[in-house]
Order: sequence, then structure tokens, then C-alpha cells
Amino acid sequence: MKQETEEQQDFVKEVTKMSDDFDRWYTDVIRKAEMADWSGVRGMMVVRPYGWAMWEAITRAFDDMIKESGHENWAFPLLIPQQLLIKEAEHIEGFGPEVAWVTRAGAAKEELEEPLAVRPTSETIVGHLIRRYIQSHRDLPKLTNQWNSVVRWEMRSRLFLRSREFWWQEGHTFHASAQEARDEVALILGYYRSIAEDWLAVPVFGGKKSPAETFAGAVYTMTLEGLMRDGVALQMGTSHYFGQNFARAYDISFSNKDNERELCYSTSWGISTRLVGALVMAHGDDSGLIVPPRIAPIQVVIVPIHRDPESRAKVEAFIGGLATELKAAGIRHRVDWRDERPGDKYAHWELKGVPLRLNVGARDADAGTVEMVDRLSRQRVSVPASGIGRRLTDELEAFQKKLFERALVYRRENTFELATLDEVVAHFKERGGFVWVPWSGDTECEERIKAEAGGVTIRTIDPDARPSGKCIVCGKPAEYRVALAKAY
Amino acid sequence: MKQETEEQQDFVKEVTKMSDDFDRWYTDVIRKAEMADWSGVRGMMVVRPYGWAMWEAITRAFDDMIKESGHENWAFPLLIPQQLLIKEAEHIEGFGPEVAWVTRAGAAKEELEEPLAVRPTSETIVGHLIRRYIQSHRDLPKLTNQWNSVVRWEMRSRLFLRSREFWWQEGHTFHASAQEARDEVALILGYYRSIAEDWLAVPVFGGKKSPAETFAGAVYTMTLEGLMRDGVALQMGTSHYFGQNFARAYDISFSNKDNERELCYSTSWGISTRLVGALVMAHGDDSGLIVPPRIAPIQVVIVPIHRDPESRAKVEAFIGGLATELKAAGIRHRVDWRDERPGDKYAHWELKGVPLRLNVGARDADAGTVEMVDRLSRQRVSVPASGIGRRLTDELEAFQKKLFERALVYRRENTFELATLDEVVAHFKERGGFVWVPWSGDTECEERIKAEAGGVTIRTIDPDARPSGKCIVCGKPAEYRVALAKAY
Repeated sequence: MKQETEEQQDFVKEVTKMSDDFDRWYTDVIRKAEMADWSGVRGMMVVRPYGWAMWEAITRAFDDMIKESGHENWAFPLLIPQQLLIKEAEHIEGFGPEVAWVTRAGAAKEELEEPLAVRPTSETIVGHLIRRYIQSHRDLPKLTNQWNSVVRWEMRSRLFLRSREFWWQEGHTFHASAQEARDEVALILGYYRSIAEDWLAVPVFGGKKSPAETFAGAVYTMTLEGLMRDGVALQMGTSHYFGQNFARAYDISFSNKDNERELCYSTSWGISTRLVGALVMAHGDDSGLIVPPRIAPIQVVIVPIHRDPESRAKVEAFIGGLATELKAAGIRHRVDWRDERPGDKYAHWELKGVPLRLNVGARDADAGTVEMVDRLSRQRVSVPASGIGRRLTDELEAFQKKLFERALVYRRENTFELATLDEVVAHFKERGGFVWVPWSGDTECEERIKAEAGGVTIRTIDPDARPSGKCIVCGKPAEYRVALAKAY
Repeated sequence: MKQETEEQQDFVKEVTKMSDDFDRWYTDVIRKAEMADWSGVRGMMVVRPYGWAMWEAITRAFDDMIKESGHENWAFPLLIPQQLLIKEAEHIEGFGPEVAWVTRAGAAKEELEEPLAVRPTSETIVGHLIRRYIQSHRDLPKLTNQWNSVVRWEMRSRLFLRSREFWWQEGHTFHASAQEARDEVALILGYYRSIAEDWLAVPVFGGKKSPAETFAGAVYTMTLEGLMRDGVALQMGTSHYFGQNFARAYDISFSNKDNERELCYSTSWGISTRLVGALVMAHGDDSGLIVPPRIAPIQVVIVPIHRDPESRAKVEAFIGGLATELKAAGIRHRVDWRDERPGDKYAHWELKGVPLRLNVGARDADAGTVEMVDRLSRQRVSVPASGIGRRLTDELEAFQKKLFERALVYRRENTFELATLDEVVAHFKERGGFVWVPWSGDTECEERIKAEAGGVTIRTIDPDARPSGKCIVCGKPAEYRVALAKAY
């Protein structure tokens, strides 16, 4: 508790340079850009409006996608009885160590008959409750989702990436056939890819996880992996196929078309507020954040420049017209009338990663122009005020594309293909990035890579490539082509 | 736990008639209409998609309102350290008996150094954290809101109205002056009135609460009170003015324009999923729900009527065209192709309270018409298919108005003005509704009313009326005109 409380108290004066200390830069930027802080409750964040608005943009986008394909939002209970949680042995093994327990309640703080877990994830309670609503194959599929927060008693903490409470959506679906459930897992992974690439502008490698990295209780896990600017990979979303494992443990069955009882096939999938951390680490630079326009709480900031009351009045009237046009064009914008020097304002909005800035002085008002600066190139361009709504809409779209392309170039420059364990070990001593290698599929080989290459793990299996060559560990013919990386 | 679990297991076959048993009708309708159920975790609900979509409609509407006036969403921690919770003595007195405590966590279920409360409401943690972000008057106002769920260890339970977990928004704002904070309380009450009347179609009386009904720790509480169809009042939203009470307890101060430290003035306000219960009880009838169109998850349902493959094909093609028009008009609709008899489908959608139903057969397809039935009048009207989008948009607006007017008439018929305690006692032996009476303002008089009139309470003080006459209890000149009612 002390560490965070102390960190809280002192202001971030200067943001550490990314090149000097990436971890420190990350925390500095998030706090100085007013996205989030530690709360003083050990390991728990307070998410401030600028950070929360980014998460809201993600939630709106994803919620629209899943509703379009027939998914429905539910609210399942926050507290889960202990006996329910432990029914699926593998699952509880995965989560047991991280659970926080409500044991007392009421005026006299009476001990409860049975401890209640604060949900670490809701597979168990959803599985238990959904039974009631499934009698026949006509009740399937059941495509549930919920937006909530979950608690996991983590020992390490990092803003947005690892905290004792985080916010997410958790989808749980139940199907009459294995194929339909597998298709669901793939469908959702496609949505997640769109969130990562089209919205967050972070290119991802996607595919199955190796057995060692598969979710507790799942038959297989699909993942998307992005690359952060320190060369470390980040899991951007996962979608799990359970087969009939959960249905067996929680007795979720239906009468099929032949009127026989059959166990359901189920899936679960989630993305969380860690995606907000991802956009910080995937795009930021020494000056601070760079926020993708589709996610940006503020897409355009207008900085007035004036010396005397007369020029202020002129600039104010001119900006009034601009703001009306921006509003009509649906552009999220703000005018910065604070009593600060323009230079300080520029630095402030650069730190916050606002994609476009308009500097507007009396001369601009006379000429009917504005000075536009984008957060990527930082070049100043004079732009006519007439038609500004349309122009900025185009600029924001172009910015979104450029940001994705920049991330794609960065990933290309940091993705490698190696053929031996020695090369892999040598590589990760020097640098990060993704390294594609052939792998036998043996867990022993996977463990040896991790042990020898300093914690490097298999992030994903290439879904497309026919494997060629020999496993970098055992030398047997490879079954898979896999991406190795250090990961958050 | 047993009671709810048992109730869960058996299906609701027939909905009890409202006139036979209102409480039973309420639970039957909610469960049979697939809005919510008890979860088996004692006192905790599972909210199903049809119920949750109503809450989502409310959240969207209110979120838009508060953002328009500069409020911002935050995420504050779910768990609150015990020592923080008990700082404001009155406040914890109000909530202490209802708190659930996390006392253990992790693999070995180790006892925590300090118990953590699952938030019953967040005044304390918000007050504690907001201090960091307030230095000067330039940092004010701070207009925070969050959407979450809270836990209160209630002993009685009723779906949507009283449950151990419920969903809500809680706004917490901090101001540089008392007047500004008071204005905020009034602004929000105005938004709540719009949600109640314009969205839920429930007319409300609004004003201050009497001291006995004021929120723990507040200087005053503003409330909105609606009337349910059993004559019992329901609190639809409250907005609290704390003066400097919370700021004093949590040391929330700012340097004012004279550069002196001053304590902030604060407010808090909330509406919850109980509003979903309110719309059930304010509008329903023996056949089930009647959902206001602006809240309705399904505004229009189309029931195809066909006898053979040929007529089915014709009807299907015709409905395809209708559905396209409805979609273009932004109308939330569903086509019911299930294998059920039309009459069973009618009853099903009436139970679910869908405002408009279109019955479409082969003859309609030939004639280019549809048969429209509205849930209020239940009259069948033939309507041309051409221009159906515009027509139904108008019909839905008219329906929303009619529903409000119907509720207004009901309230008018159930609102009374009485002058003596005897009359009040006699009234509430016979019936419910609102009874306006003159009141001295003495708590003793308030308590006596409650004791003698079977639990009747002062729901709100009339903000407009100059009091006239004498207090119905003590006979002194009245200070206030107040509305009495039984309440949920």
C-alpha cells in the first residue's frame, strides 16, 4: 500500500523519456495525461475521465458489433458461492489463488455460512444459471455478454495492465454443436481484431495458444498479440472454446432434434481495460500519448492566441464559428481558454495525444484560415476555415491510417524468423520483438525455450503456415510455426 | 436461500391477476416476461436481456444528459478500506448495517490486515480520492459520475426494488460555492424528472424530503415520487446536498479567489435499476407489461399468419419489405417466426408489453396493408404498408404520450387533500395514493403520522405551495404542505 500511496502524493513534474526508462515513462504518461492513478487501496486503480472515455469508445464499438450478430447483455451476480466456484476443477485451479472472499456482512459483521467469491470471471455462475433457460435445441444458441469489473488478487501491479480490479466484457455462449461453438470463437476473434486494428490502430498476430498458455478449463484458446514500443508483446483479447467441459461440470444440457439429452458446447471471451494500456504503449513517444482518432476523447483541440482584449474578441468570434462547424461534423473537440502560455498548452495537448491541434490567432481570423498541427508529423499547415468540418474529418481518417501503418512498420522491423534455440537465446539477450520459429508441439520444448530465453513464451501459433523445418529445441520435424516474444 | 431457489425452479405457468394479488403479479410478470430472476445467491438478481435492455435505454438517455452539461464518467474502486468508510459518522451509521466485507484473499485465503467493504455507495472513496485533483478554485467544479453495481445486505428482497446487488449511476460533485452545489442538485433532479416522465412515462411529485427521510450525512435530499398501480409510492431518484459535511470529514478543500483554503461543497445523486421495477408497476395490467416505447427493447413485433407454404412465401416476402422500412426508420422490431399459434404469440407479446403489434397474412400482402394492434387500446386497425416507417414512428410517439396521460389520470384519481390525522388514518385503512396535508415541520408529528397511519411516510415537501391551515397532528400553523403515502 505504501508504495502506491507515496507515488500518488508527488506530482509527475516531468515525464521520463521513453528511451530512458520505458516502464517509468508508461506510468508517468498515464498519470500526467490524467488517465488513471493508483487509488491507495492496494493494487486498485481509479480511472479518470480521460482514460475512461477511451474505454467507453471501445465498449460502444464492440457492443454494436456483438448486438448486430444477436448477442445479448445480461447482468449476473457479483458474488459467487464457494461451492459453485470449485465445481470445475481445472478452472478453479487457474483462479483459486487470486480470489477475494466476502466472509462477513451486516450490522454485527456476522460470519456467512458459506464464503462468497468476488467474481474473478463468471463462467461458473453463468453456467449454473443458464441451465434454467435451456431446455431444447430451440433455446440455443444462448449468446450472453456482460460489462462489469472483476477482482483478482494480483501481487504485481501496473496501471491498466495488471490491477486487482479491472473492467471488461465477458461473453459466455452455449451451443447445440461443436462446430457452431468453434465458429463463435472465430467470429469474436474477428471482432477483436477489428477493435485492435481498426479502432486502436494496433496490428495483431492472431491464432491458437499453445497448451501451456491455454485458459484454465478450455479445450483451446484463440488470442491476438500486439507489439508494444519496448518490443514486448501484449495479449489484446482471447476467445476460448470449452467443448463440453463446462457443460459437464455444471450440467448444462438440452434435448436435441432426436429428443435425446446432450451436453451444450460453450465458449467464453473477453477484452478489458488493458487495451487502454495497449494503445499507450503501442503509439506513445517521448512527448506523451498519441491517441487513435476513433478512440480519442478529444480529436481536435483549438488553442486561441491573443494579446489584447481586441484580438481576443476577434479570435473568440472566429472560434465560435469553427466550433459550430466541428460540432456539426460530429468531431469531438475542445477550445482551450485557460490562462496559460500557448507553448505550455501545446505541450499539454501533445502529452494527452490529441490527434489534431488548431492554433488560431487574430491574423488567422482576418485571413479566414487556421494553423493545423498533427500529433504525428508536428508540421504546421495553414488551412482555410471554410469547409473545416469536412477537411478535419478527412484528416482524422488519414491520421488513423497513418498511425496503423506506423505501427505496422514498427512491427515489421521487429519481427524475425529464426531456426535454432541458440539464435533465439542470443536474439532476446539483445532485443525484443516477435520471433517466428518451428516447434514440435511438445510442452517440454516449450518449457525449455522459456527457461533458456529468459521468460520468452509462445504467444500464438500461426494459423496459416504449413510448418517447415525442424523444432528449434528437439530437432524433430516441426508441427507448428509459432511466434515467440516476451510479454506483459 | 431456499425460498428463492425453490421459486426459481418452478416455471411461472400463469401470471397471477394484478387485481388478485399485486405482489405476486409483479414477480410473475417480471419472470414470465424474461426480465429477471433470483439467482440462487440469496437476495441477488440475475437480470435477463429483456430487463437489462430497458436499463440500458435509461443509461443511454441519462448519460447523454449529464455529458451535455459537462459531467464526466470515472471508475472508482469496488472495495473500500474500513477506516475510510467510517470517517463520516452519520454516513456510516446509515450504511454500516448493510455492508458486506471482504476479509480474506489469495491462495491460502489469508486474513487481510484491514477488512474491505464492497461499496454500498461511493461517497467515502470518491471524497478521499478527489482531494488529489482539487487544488484551486480553477479545478472546480468537479462533476463526476460512475455506472456500477453496489451491494447492500438487505434482509427483504423484491426483484428490481430491493436486492443485495443493484445497478445504478452515482454522481458525486464538488463545488466552490454552496449556491452552485444547490443548483447542481436541482439540475440533476430536473434530468431525473425527464427520465421519469418523458422516458418512463411516470408522472412524479418532486421536492425536498423531510429530515427523517434525508440521506445519511446530507443537509437535504431532493426526491421524485411516482405512484404505482397498487396505490403505493416509489422513490424514482434522489439528489443530495451535503454542504461541507463530506468535505470536512474527508478534508476536501481548495484555495479560493482570495487565496484562502476553503472546504468544498458537495452533492451526490443516483438512479438505479429500481426504475425498471417502477415501469412494470406503473403501467402493467392483468395481461402483463406495458413498456413505454422510448424504453422498449422491442417497439414493434410482426406476427406472420400463414397456412401453407405458398402463403408463407408470400407473407415472408412482404414482411421482408416491411422490416427494411422499419429498420430505416430506426424502429426496434422483431419478426416472430416461431412455431406457435398466432393467438399464443399475441399473448406472449402482450405479456412482454410490446407497444405495437402487426399481424400480417397473405390477404394483407395482396392488399398492401397490415393489421396494427396497440397494447393499450388493443383495437385492430388496418394500415397501409406504404409509408409504414413514418406511420409507426408517429404511432409510437402517440403511444408514449397516451401512456403518460393514463398514468397522470390514475394519479389524479388517487391524490387527495385532507386536513386531519383522523381522516388520514381512515383514508389509508381503505386505500392508497398520495394524500397532501399541512405539516408543522416537527419530527414528532412526522413520527406520529407514521405510527398511526400504518407506516405512511412523508414522501416529499411541496416546493411551490405556501402552506395554509394547521398541522394535522399538533394543530400549530403549518410550515409545509407534504405528500403522504405508503412507499416501497
